[in-house]
Amino acid sequence: MLRTHTCGELRLKNIGSLVVLSGWVYKIRNKGKIIWLDIKDRYGITQLVFQKILLKKKLTNKIKLITKESVLKISGIVLKRIHKNINIATGNIEIEVLDIKILNYSKALPFIIEDKVDKVESLRMKYRYLDLRKKAIFNKLIMRSNIVRIIRDYLNKSSFIEIETPILIKSTPEGSREFLVPSRIYSGQFYSLHQSPQVFKQLLMISGFDKYYQIVKCFRDEDLRSDRQPEFTQIDCEMSFMERKDILFFFENMIKNLFFDLKKIKLNNFLKISYLDVKKKYGTDKPDLRFDMHLVQLNYLVKIKKFKNFDDSGEISCICVKNSFSFSKKIIDQLDFFLKSKDLKLNKLIYIKYLLNGKIKSSINKFFKDSILLNLLSFANANLGDTLLILYGESEDVRNGLSVLRLKLANDLNLINKNTFFPLWVIDFPIAEKDKKTNKYTSLHHFFTSPKASSLSLLNKYPLSVVSNSYDMVINGLEIGGGSIRIHNKILQNKIFKLFFDKITLSREFDFLLNAFSYGCPPHGGIAFGLDRLCALLSKSNSIRNFIAFPKNNSGRDLMINAPSFFLKN
Amino acid sequence: MLRTHTCGELRLKNIGSLVVLSGWVYKIRNKGKIIWLDIKDRYGITQLVFQKILLKKKLTNKIKLITKESVLKISGIVLKRIHKNINIATGNIEIEVLDIKILNYSKALPFIIEDKVDKVESLRMKYRYLDLRKKAIFNKLIMRSNIVRIIRDYLNKSSFIEIETPILIKSTPEGSREFLVPSRIYSGQFYSLHQSPQVFKQLLMISGFDKYYQIVKCFRDEDLRSDRQPEFTQIDCEMSFMERKDILFFFENMIKNLFFDLKKIKLNNFLKISYLDVKKKYGTDKPDLRFDMHLVQLNYLVKIKKFKNFDDSGEISCICVKNSFSFSKKIIDQLDFFLKSKDLKLNKLIYIKYLLNGKIKSSINKFFKDSILLNLLSFANANLGDTLLILYGESEDVRNGLSVLRLKLANDLNLINKNTFFPLWVIDFPIAEKDKKTNKYTSLHHFFTSPKASSLSLLNKYPLSVVSNSYDMVINGLEIGGGSIRIHNKILQNKIFKLFFDKITLSREFDFLLNAFSYGCPPHGGIAFGLDRLCALLSKSNSIRNFIAFPKNNSGRDLMINAPSFFLKN
Repeated sequence: MLRTHTCGELRLKNIGSLVVLSGWVYKIRNKGKIIWLDIKDRYGITQLVFQKILLKKKLTNKIKLITKESVLKISGIVLKRIHKNINIATGNIEIEVLDIKILNYSKALPFIIEDKVDKVESLRMKYRYLDLRKKAIFNKLIMRSNIVRIIRDYLNKSSFIEIETPILIKSTPEGSREFLVPSRIYSGQFYSLHQSPQVFKQLLMISGFDKYYQIVKCFRDEDLRSDRQPEFTQIDCEMSFMERKDILFFFENMIKNLFFDLKKIKLNNFLKISYLDVKKKYGTDKPDLRFDMHLVQLNYLVKIKKFKNFDDSGEISCICVKNSFSFSKKIIDQLDFFLKSKDLKLNKLIYIKYLLNGKIKSSINKFFKDSILLNLLSFANANLGDTLLILYGESEDVRNGLSVLRLKLANDLNLINKNTFFPLWVIDFPIAEKDKKTNKYTSLHHFFTSPKASSLSLLNKYPLSVVSNSYDMVINGLEIGGGSIRIHNKILQNKIFKLFFDKITLSREFDFLLNAFSYGCPPHGGIAFGLDRLCALLSKSNSIRNFIAFPKNNSGRDLMINAPSFFLKN
Repeated sequence: MLRTHTCGELRLKNIGSLVVLSGWVYKIRNKGKIIWLDIKDRYGITQLVFQKILLKKKLTNKIKLITKESVLKISGIVLKRIHKNINIATGNIEIEVLDIKILNYSKALPFIIEDKVDKVESLRMKYRYLDLRKKAIFNKLIMRSNIVRIIRDYLNKSSFIEIETPILIKSTPEGSREFLVPSRIYSGQFYSLHQSPQVFKQLLMISGFDKYYQIVKCFRDEDLRSDRQPEFTQIDCEMSFMERKDILFFFENMIKNLFFDLKKIKLNNFLKISYLDVKKKYGTDKPDLRFDMHLVQLNYLVKIKKFKNFDDSGEISCICVKNSFSFSKKIIDQLDFFLKSKDLKLNKLIYIKYLLNGKIKSSINKFFKDSILLNLLSFANANLGDTLLILYGESEDVRNGLSVLRLKLANDLNLINKNTFFPLWVIDFPIAEKDKKTNKYTSLHHFFTSPKASSLSLLNKYPLSVVSNSYDMVINGLEIGGGSIRIHNKILQNKIFKLFFDKITLSREFDFLLNAFSYGCPPHGGIAFGLDRLCALLSKSNSIRNFIAFPKNNSGRDLMINAPSFFLKN
């Protein structure tokens, strides 16, 4: 037998018992007559004690060989500990060791396994199996396991059926790139790895499964950013005969239940904001609402005042930085420099300072009278000591810039209460936008998203004005999930497809799906959550990589197993 | 609102309520003054009734357009049904329809959606979303979802942690073929799709996770047989500090719990038989023990009797077919013909009939005296009316042949009680066998399986005699799962690797793993179950394909989406 108890299990009630423990050597303290040795496993740490005088020569020799992180099996008697350790659950007891077996040695480690010692990532990833021994990382994977369990329980209780859809599918003309898998049987032909189960879950609704879910690996062959992985996990759901409000209600409750079950956090009801409003108010469709500092559009107040920069701009907007009377010219220059580094097309940042003495200081006071500047301050709700930061130019650029600036200031000025979660639904995305480079329509969600009935009449003439039955869940500035009510009408789906695809592509790729719509397709809708990101959010972490057991690095490489690699057949 | 209730929900207590239902048209009966219409969804069937006299013209016209499998939303009043239908849960009520909305039409179906109508598989697969509407298929996927839930609950309660391992890994020199995925970033390099999480789950044990599981898609680019799919699902588990008996006990209970929870079936304790014994007794390592008819080796009774065929054979074995007095020469010839069709290297089937009158009839009575034949009959426990069927030749061929024959006879003679499940553990597989074609060692389980301590001394000189700490779970002749205690010692692992790989391969493929073994690797072991096959077993079905929502056909093709396909980029 390798153990009677785990290393986190023994208590005062076990005193006098003969026990067998197995675990890793955590600490060794040799104090002459007595040797202490802590062993650990997933469940805890237990202190072993060796009275040298009682030890047989053989055992003493063995102990000398033991290195940290070696694996031992010991048998011994549970004793009451004189100097209790209140920091560990087994702190009331220790084991007087009778026999010891070294199950495996550990050679010197490439890095010390302590939470605080963060070696360069490449070394950590090469020895990921040791990196995972760090309690901080270890616990992140346990948390992930718990998240998945809680969500599954919730969905199972709500009559959802877990169904696996194929991963090896057909190459589709979607935006982001897919991994191709050559077929051995059919020469020259390929499968592709699915990017999501979208089409299949809709087919399952046509089959009548009513409520489907799957927690599933998806694949995307993108150039990787810091929070992307070539393989990532989605919580993928679809329901029939539900309207948008029903779906939002259900999944809002799912996430509330998750936060409460996992962290005892009660989330407020989720705000609902339309895409147009959220972009106007926060410059982004995934705003962090843990602080306000919203955008204020100044167009009507500053245009036609013969300040050419403003007159030529599509949008002039500002944010009001509260209590920023200590903002020097230098700080504002640094903010401008920061914005310039962000690869946005932006003009110079303009400021209007409302000094504590009531005077106004501004980089545009040559062009505007104080009365106008005061008007702007007042319009943006500025008080004495506040500063307006203004950007002007193309609407999209101005909003992006202010959104980035807003976040930076919130972090710099410590405006974010890191212990809160602020959830919202962003709804009513446009059905399409125009790619500036190709001048083609692209889908904001995907091609299966249904237009709202109220804007359907615009589809033929003004497709960019058509609003869709879509929704994103955003918490603390992170898009956690997104979905829509799908199109269930063949004719409408065909019309939408035609916005994005030529006839040949459409027929090749989607004929089977349009055909499926002809055999009694129910109204349906769904959502997909990014599990990796949800884990990071719940852990208040910036990187998803620590929530993945064996992640790939920024260039898609697994440094431990050295993949991808050249193909060498034996 | 699309529904207030599902189509399986309304009862007598709802009488008088105004309800909204949505569902598919199942049956239409127009009897002049009254029209009945059944609508269905996942949850059940509800009868709608239209009194023509009460109908507005508009509604009447709508009803005329309705086709089977169209999707309706109706509102109406729940009435007590005069002629109850005891076959459905809603059989006490019907709905008097006030309004109807046709949510989607269905055109004429490519086949009728009835459980009994089994069209050719290619048509069913092309319209799999309609095929799935058949209750018999539909329920199989619901059962699969339940199986997964029960197993997850069991493992979660036992402190297992669900951890995802990478699917895009490095190409490995294992036996069966893997799918390769070209990397876009690293020109000329490939990932491969994992065939199992084996290496990663062992690394997780090195990390200290103690108990791991994952229900995960795996991939194998094999020529497909009837019960294989290029993507299949494993229930993959690993535990540290457990001995084989602990692991067998735990997973035996997991399967017992599954059978009881799902089907209220109490499985007996699992028999344990060694690989050598099971091969000798049943000719296969996955015997169906719902019937006996075991193999009896006759070598010592028939050799050196100057019958050359036997004298030249490595093995002469038989099965005893009870009460087979009606077996004619023709039947035995048919059995011989059946064996010949099986691509086995077999000599002609020999019989010894013990006639009811005590006389003996045999195809070898020219070579053996009746006294010897009687001796054989007695040795094989034959009674009057029984028949011995004998095969001779190379041991492996004889056993394979008798094993196949045993199964055929059991089916032909109706010896199998289809309502029972007979589980066993086959243990102690050899660590290696020799491939007759290449004359190289190949692994029976895999390269990480530990030899039993008792046979370790044979490793250098007689590797084929080394017995491993391995186990397969077999139920009703199906291998449901398999695993082993793994090697946790670096030196031993290196020795085993050397049996199978040359130095260069070994270093390239496994250096990182051997290195991982040097940092405190705990004793560990695990198992993987084939989920698809487990579903088929529990449903007493021969094919796994009906338990997969969107399976590929025998040549790895998805007929619905037409994958794989040629690569056409837009």
